Amino acid sequence: MFQSFEETAQPEQGPARLAALRQELATRGLDGFIVPRADRFMGEYVAPRDERLSWLTGFTGSAGLCVVLADQAGVFIDGRYTVQVRAQVDLDHFTPVPWPATRPGQWLAATARPGAKIGIDPWLHPPADLEKLRADVEGMGITFVEVDNAVDAIWADQPAPPAEPLTVHPLDFAGEPHGEKCARLAADLEGAAMITLPDSVAWLLNVRGADIPRNPVPHAMAILHADASVDLFCDPGKLDDAVRAHLGDTVRLHPEAALEQHLADHNGPLLLDRASCPIAVQRALGPKAHALLGEDPCILPKARKTPAEISGMRAAHIRDAAAMVRFLAWLDRERPNGSLTEIDVATALEGFRRQDNMLRDISFDSIVGSGAHGAIVHYRVTHATNRPLQQGELLLVDSGGQYLDGTTDITRTIPIGPVGALEADSYTRVLQGLIAMSRARWPKGLAGRDLDALARYPLWLAGRDYDHGTGHGVGAYLSVHEGPQRLSRVSEVPLEAGMILSNEPGHYREGQYGIRLENLIVVQGGAEIAEQDARAMLSFETLTLVPFDRRLILLGSLSGEEQAWLDAYHAEVAAKIGPLVEGADATWLEQATAPL
Amino acid sequence: MFQSFEETAQPEQGPARLAALRQELATRGLDGFIVPRADRFMGEYVAPRDERLSWLTGFTGSAGLCVVLADQAGVFIDGRYTVQVRAQVDLDHFTPVPWPATRPGQWLAATARPGAKIGIDPWLHPPADLEKLRADVEGMGITFVEVDNAVDAIWADQPAPPAEPLTVHPLDFAGEPHGEKCARLAADLEGAAMITLPDSVAWLLNVRGADIPRNPVPHAMAILHADASVDLFCDPGKLDDAVRAHLGDTVRLHPEAALEQHLADHNGPLLLDRASCPIAVQRALGPKAHALLGEDPCILPKARKTPAEISGMRAAHIRDAAAMVRFLAWLDRERPNGSLTEIDVATALEGFRRQDNMLRDISFDSIVGSGAHGAIVHYRVTHATNRPLQQGELLLVDSGGQYLDGTTDITRTIPIGPVGALEADSYTRVLQGLIAMSRARWPKGLAGRDLDALARYPLWLAGRDYDHGTGHGVGAYLSVHEGPQRLSRVSEVPLEAGMILSNEPGHYREGQYGIRLENLIVVQGGAEIAEQDARAMLSFETLTLVPFDRRLILLGSLSGEEQAWLDAYHAEVAAKIGPLVEGADATWLEQATAPL
Repeated sequence: MFQSFEETAQPEQGPARLAALRQELATRGLDGFIVPRADRFMGEYVAPRDERLSWLTGFTGSAGLCVVLADQAGVFIDGRYTVQVRAQVDLDHFTPVPWPATRPGQWLAATARPGAKIGIDPWLHPPADLEKLRADVEGMGITFVEVDNAVDAIWADQPAPPAEPLTVHPLDFAGEPHGEKCARLAADLEGAAMITLPDSVAWLLNVRGADIPRNPVPHAMAILHADASVDLFCDPGKLDDAVRAHLGDTVRLHPEAALEQHLADHNGPLLLDRASCPIAVQRALGPKAHALLGEDPCILPKARKTPAEISGMRAAHIRDAAAMVRFLAWLDRERPNGSLTEIDVATALEGFRRQDNMLRDISFDSIVGSGAHGAIVHYRVTHATNRPLQQGELLLVDSGGQYLDGTTDITRTIPIGPVGALEADSYTRVLQGLIAMSRARWPKGLAGRDLDALARYPLWLAGRDYDHGTGHGVGAYLSVHEGPQRLSRVSEVPLEAGMILSNEPGHYREGQYGIRLENLIVVQGGAEIAEQDARAMLSFETLTLVPFDRRLILLGSLSGEEQAWLDAYHAEVAAKIGPLVEGADATWLEQATAPL
Repeated sequence: MFQSFEETAQPEQGPARLAALRQELATRGLDGFIVPRADRFMGEYVAPRDERLSWLTGFTGSAGLCVVLADQAGVFIDGRYTVQVRAQVDLDHFTPVPWPATRPGQWLAATARPGAKIGIDPWLHPPADLEKLRADVEGMGITFVEVDNAVDAIWADQPAPPAEPLTVHPLDFAGEPHGEKCARLAADLEGAAMITLPDSVAWLLNVRGADIPRNPVPHAMAILHADASVDLFCDPGKLDDAVRAHLGDTVRLHPEAALEQHLADHNGPLLLDRASCPIAVQRALGPKAHALLGEDPCILPKARKTPAEISGMRAAHIRDAAAMVRFLAWLDRERPNGSLTEIDVATALEGFRRQDNMLRDISFDSIVGSGAHGAIVHYRVTHATNRPLQQGELLLVDSGGQYLDGTTDITRTIPIGPVGALEADSYTRVLQGLIAMSRARWPKGLAGRDLDALARYPLWLAGRDYDHGTGHGVGAYLSVHEGPQRLSRVSEVPLEAGMILSNEPGHYREGQYGIRLENLIVVQGGAEIAEQDARAMLSFETLTLVPFDRRLILLGSLSGEEQAWLDAYHAEVAAKIGPLVEGADATWLEQATAPL
């Protein structure tokens, strides 16, 4: 099993660790220290060694930070974690702070004494972070001091850094040789670019790794030069001969520890990503170098998937759909027999994905939330929270697989016996939103913000909505959350052909239920249609091929066009997935995909 | 008649006037001069005295500017006017420039000699203009010199400034005494605010004027002080005793000419609108004053209509709908009899609006475009362009009235005999877009940009779109185009209860047809509905009450909910307008509003 149902944090240790950290700060003459969730790679997942925030506080969410002062310790968490944080941290010693409503700098300005020196680890903050911290404490006499990590200094049994081997990502899946990628990006470079995001390094060099759970990427950084050569900083023990041969002569290998000296010797401009490059990189630059704050040059090209990547994603989605269909059929068969729990469901689901030996990892810890747990958007079941599926409730299952040829992410919501009228009404509206986005065509140039309303409109008509974006970018055998494009009211990045997104409207009632339906979709040039205007249009192709639960659809609420879309979708599912399943699963699929 | 069908410009005079202007510039040692369409009040309409752009070039559009150099003269026009400008200006002497694709500063940077001195009239440019001009010529050695207007110097028979009387705008229509408005705005002021937009002055002081065609506003500027008192700069001859009594003691009257001395003597901060306050105001400030560039403080409060203003708008729309119904019934009766022309239609329409003696002006020159003319979004028929309505064509009629209690703006598209399948399909999709926006509910906080897609989606599905916003703000017996809110992909101003907008999707095929359907709508707090989420929602109330032409609706394409909306709308039209029309008009309305 990839997924574990253990509680990984030890909140009961929090007060003692906090006391030890304060002792350490006092010794160093510091008034405070900031402990972010992030590691130096700034991703959503971190290696066990980098779980400083949960080690100190007990809070295990995927975003947050702790600001430790001598008499207070604020744990900053966003709306997804307000309930979870109170269950996890010792509230006598840690104070949850709603974030970003209150930013750490604002809290410091109100809480720390004038003249306070606050330590930060320059490897764990990008320039944008520090700019905001400084702006928020302006005029308060508070300074930030860049120091060696104070948590590492007191964490006696801190795990070792991961050292998993790199692998070559085959050209058949990547679609563009890494030398061509480097040359293409180098052509637009002034000087050189620092690449600190592991998925950027993996994409640029057509390699993959296993240093971070759920993300097939290595702990590695790189410098791309204007001559298209690359300095790669990565533990040499992770690179076997095959990887070295693949990388070739234009990629120079260095141990990770050599990066700082390399930066000290760097000559000329070096582009740093303002949002993700650790400040320490900028500090390490020598007198002949100068930093250009901008954007990691891999981000947009990586988002525009190659035809080979799209083909791989299609293949991965067909394989994953077969596992999902077997899972859903199993669930319908097993349910009447008694007391399945959320853990039983998550375990079975991973089992179905593992059956054909193609699964490299799950894309993220499966979210299996029954009843009220479905309303916790990022719910992760543990032995402590596990509960049996109960009659009359909804079960929300959001999961995905990492395959060599692609990454999947799918959500379906299933009724456990007959459910109420509100649930069916909301389910139907969520489905109508998903269909509206799936059918969308739009003039080239628009961003996610310009389309987001289409998925919400059916819920809005009933006075309902959901408090998350409609969709996030998705990597191709990379991170399941990938920028820069999103379907969201905060996303102004124009959508381009080849970008892959999730399409996942939902509706939640705290303490009652959660509904979410999610397909992955890929932007494509809109095929010409009769009588269309003379202008470029874009549209979506749907990658995910798994039936929607017809027991929850209010057929009378669908328009003719919505029903036609759904019938055509189910016919495509039957045609493509039907040949991959057998026996009772095939019968189940036939019924699940029959015309409405 | 308010509307004239004459050509007002004399393009044949352009070359001689251009030569005279160049002579004037040479005398003054200038290399160029910018002639904007705007007057110092920065509105869409200007008084005849301020028609400098059309006097010089012959171009009569509502937006544009001319940049005159010794050897070239660029006429900058946006996409609405690319056809019109070529028909109006002498192309041997004037060069049309697509704008804003090419900005005047960019054109100067490419065209003017290094070291060129370009004159501008500081009364005709706001700070935002000059900032952009300077940024675009940076490093080219081009300077802008603020001078007396060079066109005025050579325009021998320039008309006198308008001197129409002000009137009191009754409290029953305004809904808030002007003293309370001044006090409310003054409470947020640091120092004082300069008000240079005539509709802001008119709104703030509950007065109206007649100095600008189609806009019931005076040529007047004002300074609002933090003590809620006002200095009003306006020709004293325009104010009779009633207006003076209404304004009271806290409004101090000054001749327009006194403004500059007043600014020279001003003490402390003065807020200037960056987008509309003439630079000359800033230049006139004395040493004890300092300018704060920001936003005219009337703009947002003016956009949030009072309950009295909304009631007035409802009443105006019922009156205007009766005129529109009589007009549409007349059109259906007259058409078979022979050869109506566009001018016949515009003349008849204004006649129906005038019948009850409540019409103060039309809101703008009526757009009556038959056949290919319908595709010219801002078409204004003249004796030169007039053509008869022809069988098989569409007729687009976009018009409105200015009444004491409100301003209307409505577009309907009518078939002249049977039309083609494409026209009916596009008409139906445009109507579906209008219906989707009319039915919208959304969580408070969203802007026009977040909703715009709803009106376009049915067209997008067919690969079609329209190149204008979905809606503009509308004043209450003020300008028919009013900010800051819009339904447009460029509008980020959150919609608030009381804001009035147009809802006007369309579809155009150049050389063939134009379709546009327009209702006015007002934002209202969404009534609570069963099972809605616990959050504030907003929705629209429709003000316009005129039937949509059922001969163009493809009934099979409408969803059940769309048809239900349309039937309910027509039932409301029948109930509210039916009692106001008689005889053949009543019969026509009964048929036009029967359930589909």
